[in-house]
Amino acid sequence: MDIAAFLTSAGINIGLCVVLFSLYSILRKQPSNRVVYFGRRLASVRIRNDDFFSIERFVPSPSWIVKAWETTEEEILSIGGLDALAFQRMLIFSIRIFSIAAIICVLLVLPMNYYGKEMQHKRIPAESLDVFTIGNVKEGSRWLWAHCLALYVISFGACVLLYFEYKSITEMRLAHVIKSPLNPSHFTILVRSIPWSPGESYSDSVKKFFTNYYPSSYLSHQMVYQRGIIQKLMVDAEKMCKMIIPVHIDGRSLRPCCLCARNTTSFKMLSSEPESVKDSVSYADLDIATRENECSAAFVFFKTRYAAVVATQMLQSSNPMLWVTELAPEPHDVFWSNLSIPYRQLWLRKIAILLAAIVFMFLFLIPVTFVQGLTQLDKLSKTFPFLRGLLKKDFMSHVVTGYLPSVILMLFLYTVPPMMMLFSSVEGHVSRSGRKRSAGLKILYFTIWNVFFVNVLSGSIISQLNVFSSVRDIPMELAKAIPIQASFFMTYVLTSGWASLACEVMQLFPLSINMFKKFILRNQEDSSDDLISFPYHTEVPRVLLFGLIGFTCSIMAPLILPFLLIHFFMAYLVYRNQILNVYIPKYEGGGHFWPIFHNTTIFSLVLTQIIAIGVFGIKESPIASSFTFPLVICTLLFNEYCRQRFSPVFQKDVVEVLMDMDRRDEQSGRMSEIYQQLHSAYCQIPITSHEFCESAQERHRNKIQDPQGINPGTELSEASETWAVVNFGKESPTTKN
Amino acid sequence: MDIAAFLTSAGINIGLCVVLFSLYSILRKQPSNRVVYFGRRLASVRIRNDDFFSIERFVPSPSWIVKAWETTEEEILSIGGLDALAFQRMLIFSIRIFSIAAIICVLLVLPMNYYGKEMQHKRIPAESLDVFTIGNVKEGSRWLWAHCLALYVISFGACVLLYFEYKSITEMRLAHVIKSPLNPSHFTILVRSIPWSPGESYSDSVKKFFTNYYPSSYLSHQMVYQRGIIQKLMVDAEKMCKMIIPVHIDGRSLRPCCLCARNTTSFKMLSSEPESVKDSVSYADLDIATRENECSAAFVFFKTRYAAVVATQMLQSSNPMLWVTELAPEPHDVFWSNLSIPYRQLWLRKIAILLAAIVFMFLFLIPVTFVQGLTQLDKLSKTFPFLRGLLKKDFMSHVVTGYLPSVILMLFLYTVPPMMMLFSSVEGHVSRSGRKRSAGLKILYFTIWNVFFVNVLSGSIISQLNVFSSVRDIPMELAKAIPIQASFFMTYVLTSGWASLACEVMQLFPLSINMFKKFILRNQEDSSDDLISFPYHTEVPRVLLFGLIGFTCSIMAPLILPFLLIHFFMAYLVYRNQILNVYIPKYEGGGHFWPIFHNTTIFSLVLTQIIAIGVFGIKESPIASSFTFPLVICTLLFNEYCRQRFSPVFQKDVVEVLMDMDRRDEQSGRMSEIYQQLHSAYCQIPITSHEFCESAQERHRNKIQDPQGINPGTELSEASETWAVVNFGKESPTTKN
Repeated sequence: MDIAAFLTSAGINIGLCVVLFSLYSILRKQPSNRVVYFGRRLASVRIRNDDFFSIERFVPSPSWIVKAWETTEEEILSIGGLDALAFQRMLIFSIRIFSIAAIICVLLVLPMNYYGKEMQHKRIPAESLDVFTIGNVKEGSRWLWAHCLALYVISFGACVLLYFEYKSITEMRLAHVIKSPLNPSHFTILVRSIPWSPGESYSDSVKKFFTNYYPSSYLSHQMVYQRGIIQKLMVDAEKMCKMIIPVHIDGRSLRPCCLCARNTTSFKMLSSEPESVKDSVSYADLDIATRENECSAAFVFFKTRYAAVVATQMLQSSNPMLWVTELAPEPHDVFWSNLSIPYRQLWLRKIAILLAAIVFMFLFLIPVTFVQGLTQLDKLSKTFPFLRGLLKKDFMSHVVTGYLPSVILMLFLYTVPPMMMLFSSVEGHVSRSGRKRSAGLKILYFTIWNVFFVNVLSGSIISQLNVFSSVRDIPMELAKAIPIQASFFMTYVLTSGWASLACEVMQLFPLSINMFKKFILRNQEDSSDDLISFPYHTEVPRVLLFGLIGFTCSIMAPLILPFLLIHFFMAYLVYRNQILNVYIPKYEGGGHFWPIFHNTTIFSLVLTQIIAIGVFGIKESPIASSFTFPLVICTLLFNEYCRQRFSPVFQKDVVEVLMDMDRRDEQSGRMSEIYQQLHSAYCQIPITSHEFCESAQERHRNKIQDPQGINPGTELSEASETWAVVNFGKESPTTKN
Repeated sequence: MDIAAFLTSAGINIGLCVVLFSLYSILRKQPSNRVVYFGRRLASVRIRNDDFFSIERFVPSPSWIVKAWETTEEEILSIGGLDALAFQRMLIFSIRIFSIAAIICVLLVLPMNYYGKEMQHKRIPAESLDVFTIGNVKEGSRWLWAHCLALYVISFGACVLLYFEYKSITEMRLAHVIKSPLNPSHFTILVRSIPWSPGESYSDSVKKFFTNYYPSSYLSHQMVYQRGIIQKLMVDAEKMCKMIIPVHIDGRSLRPCCLCARNTTSFKMLSSEPESVKDSVSYADLDIATRENECSAAFVFFKTRYAAVVATQMLQSSNPMLWVTELAPEPHDVFWSNLSIPYRQLWLRKIAILLAAIVFMFLFLIPVTFVQGLTQLDKLSKTFPFLRGLLKKDFMSHVVTGYLPSVILMLFLYTVPPMMMLFSSVEGHVSRSGRKRSAGLKILYFTIWNVFFVNVLSGSIISQLNVFSSVRDIPMELAKAIPIQASFFMTYVLTSGWASLACEVMQLFPLSINMFKKFILRNQEDSSDDLISFPYHTEVPRVLLFGLIGFTCSIMAPLILPFLLIHFFMAYLVYRNQILNVYIPKYEGGGHFWPIFHNTTIFSLVLTQIIAIGVFGIKESPIASSFTFPLVICTLLFNEYCRQRFSPVFQKDVVEVLMDMDRRDEQSGRMSEIYQQLHSAYCQIPITSHEFCESAQERHRNKIQDPQGINPGTELSEASETWAVVNFGKESPTTKN
């Protein structure tokens, strides 16, 4: 591909981005779209709904960019939680390291590449992109030291930045734990695989076991019930609600209480206000939550955080497949339907899903191979002769080679996240965050394999089937392939990168659903069911993929770096905006995507270095090659150090912190209040349209997320100052993903 | 190699074995060798030393075999500990599975191989060994179902046996913990990487930390001191001993007490008898064990076993590289010199040692390649022309091809265990058992790589350098190579297997040292320094190597199986005899070699199955090949199940068990007695010739190991009834490895 074709592609994308961003700045001012673009804010504050007409509503404005830029980290943390902040730090890290890389590579490496060979240079626009890659440097050139130096600077910079980021995220994680003193998940463990004893119910077994082995710290427990029975309970509850509401208390929202251990078979209706708990009416036993319907899983509550962590760290039984304990997820984070999966199935499920994911990864090769075919015009016009006339036109051929492949690939890639999410659900994760993390990992492996490696390897001289048979030659082959594929990656950054950001900010799918509802179905009521949480499982792998492309291309084809930098900068603004306005945080993962980011970045660095060794080998520069070896070793050592120093904090809770929190709460006498909350925290009720249960808690959480009530609607009012107060009927967002 | 050459090799080895075993049965009756052959018994019972002459002393007798055969498992357990019993179970497993394999392969597979091709059969002795391998079966033969069936039977048998063995070892491990109620290591944890705070000594920090975070369960602690200071203390102690002994108590052995936290800087001399503890003289502070000499490591004692385990499982500090806790090894198991290694060095050491071990493994290829050259006579006589006359003789060429290669390989292999032990020491293990286990693993990888793979691959058509470049073809290549190398492995079983057993029972090295001492140096006093513990780190890999050879050869070259079976049977008797008489158990590993055995056996099985797939592929039997695939998957699933079901018990302690033990002790009021013992249990004194410290404990342990005083000297008396009582002066064995 030459510069002109590339610029065509860039032009299309820049145009598209400008159009979409302008469109966004208009659409977001329309009151009918507020549920699409201000979901998070709507969930936390009430806004007037005066739908008056103004010309300003139809003028594009960059105010959202200014707003996103001005938001501080503290605000991000309080609004989106630690996960959102960690995601921000990923983008900031990427901007920083690729700024360094862009400066050194464009100033130092790019000229070396361009003048690397004695050749007749054409005018720049007609120049092939390959002239700017390392492929243009002649064998045995002494200028390769510049590449080696650039590699050293980038690796060193990346490691230093990674270290400080990891350190600060770790500290923030600890600080976050300390700052959330009322988190019921700290006091709760999930026990699975409770052994069946003939004379007893599971509930009795749990009580017996924990009163025996944790007599001083065991508080109570709550069984998990079969799904079917819970649904039946819900139906009954709804019936009862309809009967009771007018009689009992008018106006106040009601919630069915959870089935706590203390009175397992009773069903209570409690008002959501804590002070009315004592008034709760205890109904007769309903005969439904009987022992036949218990699962072999339970939530066990402890008196202190420390005791709960102790119980999860220990091997309870001499048969390690019985009494399996783990820390319970946050109440909103529990993935109830997986709790009833027998524990002994889990390892089989994991293996099956692993195999399924691998098969899926390889089946995906088919569309990718097809996409690769498109970049080779000759082949294409041979296969589809009717296209020949079309392809002869210069513009069309630029579009087909420069743009179409990435678009097709991107469309196929949209099927991946739901598939991986399904895989992770079947795998049996008990928490939504765990499921998302696992899906994120799968998507990451998938993306790196199918977008990066398959494109690199299938596009190059090596035929796909022989790739796997030669281990030793992989660095060489990669070194040959990457400069050749650089043009593909550059267009990929433009299309998948820039355009997907524009799509992200536009929220095309929710927007069209909203349009359909409002203008076709004429349903003017905003539904809070549409509110979703941040899709870390797709966005973190995307950031990482661009990081991988950036690192590997940095010294081979430095022309990609400015475009990548623009991408990361746009991403920074767009995601900030989305965190502020669109996505609601439903549970707190505690920055658990950071270790994945760290490890993958190290992988990218090491891969870059290995490819560099291959390149220096091809270019017959043994000195540069041998200078790169220590770099690989140092990077791996650095990673090992970080693994030792930081990652345990992401896997286990720290005694110091928990003890101090326990003591503080004991001294301040808040413990009994916490115990009260514990009993009703975990609520195994499928979230239907009647969400009594969560509304109170949700409202409470939203208060926390907007602590000083920062800008309660200031930006909303800027968009449309006179929206009326909308009572959603049931205003709490769902906990579906 | 033909049958005649093989029989020459077998003849030499059988002769050698008969001679050595007879020699052993004579030598063991000589009173001067008792320290070599009855080391364990001498350490536990006292024997008369009447050195009278009798003709019986010079007549070979098989009584030791009868004795070894008759010993029950309970006796092995009480004498050698659980490790010895687990080792016995490994041999029993091998005998069982290879009996099954031998029956099915000799009856079913061997005839199929022999008559696999239409050919003119020679007389059996002139027949090549290759005729008995699967290489003789013609392509596309329908008889390959027999091989497939045999593989199924062997795999299924191995899995069933492995399951029941793992289960029983796990149960025995738990039972063993329950039966050892006074083990101080259950109450003790090792804290490393204590942070340095300017105003405090490490000891103060430890006290502050544990009284703060474990107030109810912390008992006391004991610092670890720099090596130099301890040696200085020892010198002082020796001086003091010389002064005090005649004054204090005459005749009774004395021991310097440990530096306990309660009076850290004092130095006490205690008589070894517990009842005289109260009489101990407290000397003035010696100014030596000051804070400058403290290491950042300490033993911390807890009030209950449960509390100690809790403290090891938790993440103590928000910096995971500080306050690192682990369960303390048994007092005799502590490897003191490694305790002073700063914890932050450990990961670097581990990586360095890993690299060093890999380099060592590859350097070893040089002698192995040389050995392989010997089996090709033509090459040899070309390289060394002066040997040509010698090699022309039939007998010599049989010796050179059939015997010499294995002997040379074996000699080189003798250098490996000390090297690996050194590596494991440098790695920084804090316990002798951990060091031994790590060395065992290294030796295992080393042996499997250098004896099995390199021999298979270098001996076959593939040149060594290309081996690594083709991953996909490895099963095929192995399938080609193994039948060709079968003859080498058969001689290897005879030489390295049989002969090394004879050497083991003869104890050639200790015997010659003893001879040298007695007859050259004229030193008639037996030294207990020579007593050694069972070398599991070399013997377990050896058993596993023969297992691997047996499995992979079973259906390819079934002729090896009877010889292997004889080897395992001999090993069973020899090692039983050695456990009964020679090796003393210095510490208890709790059968921690079993998971290694299990995993490696599974590896051998899977490798066999993969090679079988390759063989069936070469033999053009796609049905047999595809029937083998599910077998691989089932074996791996079985392994995964066992990993889930049993292996956690080998890694963590079980709450149930510990709690029950704690309660029993609390009810019986034995706790205060245990606390008393704790303070003096860990004794950081380099074991020199003056071993006051351990004698009492050692004597106590030996009493436990010979609980009913089983056969106190009955066999010894059979060997020489009138040995006089020998007082070793210092009769306890050293704890060196």
